[in-house]
Amino acid sequence: MSKLSLAETAELSMLLEVSTNIKPGNIDRFHDYEDTKFRHFLASAVLARDVFERVPYMTLGEAMYAAVEHTNGHAGGNTHFGAFILLLPLIKGKGIAGACEAVLQTTVEDAVLFYQAFGRTQVRVNKEDEMDVNNPASIAMLREKQMTMLDVMRYSSDTDMVAREWVNGFSLTRKAADMLKEKDGADSIQDMFLRLMAAYPDTFIAKKFGYARAVSIMERAQLVLSGGLSLSRFDEECILGGVNPGSLADICIAGIFTALMEGWQWDC
Amino acid sequence: MSKLSLAETAELSMLLEVSTNIKPGNIDRFHDYEDTKFRHFLASAVLARDVFERVPYMTLGEAMYAAVEHTNGHAGGNTHFGAFILLLPLIKGKGIAGACEAVLQTTVEDAVLFYQAFGRTQVRVNKEDEMDVNNPASIAMLREKQMTMLDVMRYSSDTDMVAREWVNGFSLTRKAADMLKEKDGADSIQDMFLRLMAAYPDTFIAKKFGYARAVSIMERAQLVLSGGLSLSRFDEECILGGVNPGSLADICIAGIFTALMEGWQWDC
Repeated sequence: MSKLSLAETAELSMLLEVSTNIKPGNIDRFHDYEDTKFRHFLASAVLARDVFERVPYMTLGEAMYAAVEHTNGHAGGNTHFGAFILLLPLIKGKGIAGACEAVLQTTVEDAVLFYQAFGRTQVRVNKEDEMDVNNPASIAMLREKQMTMLDVMRYSSDTDMVAREWVNGFSLTRKAADMLKEKDGADSIQDMFLRLMAAYPDTFIAKKFGYARAVSIMERAQLVLSGGLSLSRFDEECILGGVNPGSLADICIAGIFTALMEGWQWDC
Repeated sequence: MSKLSLAETAELSMLLEVSTNIKPGNIDRFHDYEDTKFRHFLASAVLARDVFERVPYMTLGEAMYAAVEHTNGHAGGNTHFGAFILLLPLIKGKGIAGACEAVLQTTVEDAVLFYQAFGRTQVRVNKEDEMDVNNPASIAMLREKQMTMLDVMRYSSDTDMVAREWVNGFSLTRKAADMLKEKDGADSIQDMFLRLMAAYPDTFIAKKFGYARAVSIMERAQLVLSGGLSLSRFDEECILGGVNPGSLADICIAGIFTALMEGWQWDC
């Protein structure tokens, strides 16, 4: 699929990710949530494409704001906020090496735009955070402290594995892509996702239920890998408990994008 | 969703159609075929988008050729040929009324490009047809007889319900859109598709298995509507028999596009 443009590759990554047969606890080919459905993820991918095309002409803060604004047109709430945090620098940098350069170029204005974008979503944030995006004083503080968008990610990196990708050289994105590249065919996305779940506590789960719960979910995923629990049973457990590893899903998308860019044969 | 561009609307129509829960005999959210899979339809939609954006600057023959060429990049074979025959004039004409005008403008050169596009697919055609697209003499004959792309559709309209849309004012597209507009929500695509199957023998099935078989499949769909057969059982029957109503699927996409353009609330 070398003919795909970067924007096409990014959109296809989002569609392949949500169409994975089973991603425990998440929306996938076979599961919807009550309010957010599979088709909202399709619409979000369709709507994001236009912004992906324009990334070369925007700063990362501008692109983030545009992506959130343009994909707000469906009723499924936030669908791809974390994915945009990863895909936009990967598109701008044409891969991980360039993305690491691109995040270094971000400015205070990018940070402000990022906060404004964040404020337009219903993304979960930690309570009592002085940098809470819902607090108008936060933007004044960004300017006062001269925090760039990269500084904001650094600030969040302890508790957010998506933000952490900006400061650690996209290391989980790299790992996810490498897992995919071990084997041809998009069917391996399901395995890759489970292996990520078994190796890293999801910070979205940690924000929602606490770190201990995120670790116990990781251990359940390990049990699936070792054959002690079926994937579909684990999926049911997660869905019943409202446990959705949303940050790992974002990293999964970034991994698919990276693997596709590097010539991974998804299409067999 | 009034913010969607025509190209976004067309792409979303293709994605919503293939993501319908059950479309008897077809690839849908829950079924793949051996060679062609759900994900090939996703990729085809992603790849077609670029051509949809450029429709205003192309003739319909050029757009058809570009759509086939650009979506040939995945391994799933022909996925959306018939859908392009309908979507391209609908995009060009910004709806059914304009599409009826647009098809009148087609030329002999458009017909030639259409045949060349057709020749690049594995779309089923009737045997022993003097206008067989695989016969190089056919293109000479198009020029000799001065057949426009609309003439080609007229020629095929007896045996092909997609081609027939070009000569009957997109009447099934209209009916499909009207069915959707009876009720909000993309869940009604499944009902619309079944109602189409119960009302019209699919010409793709007729080409593959004969007209009588197409009629008997229509009668089975009527039995589902009247409660005498479950939808999932009917779906199984079709899949086991290799019976796929592919022409109605194309019309379903055109109906979704038309309904979306006319303000149908898919998103609830």
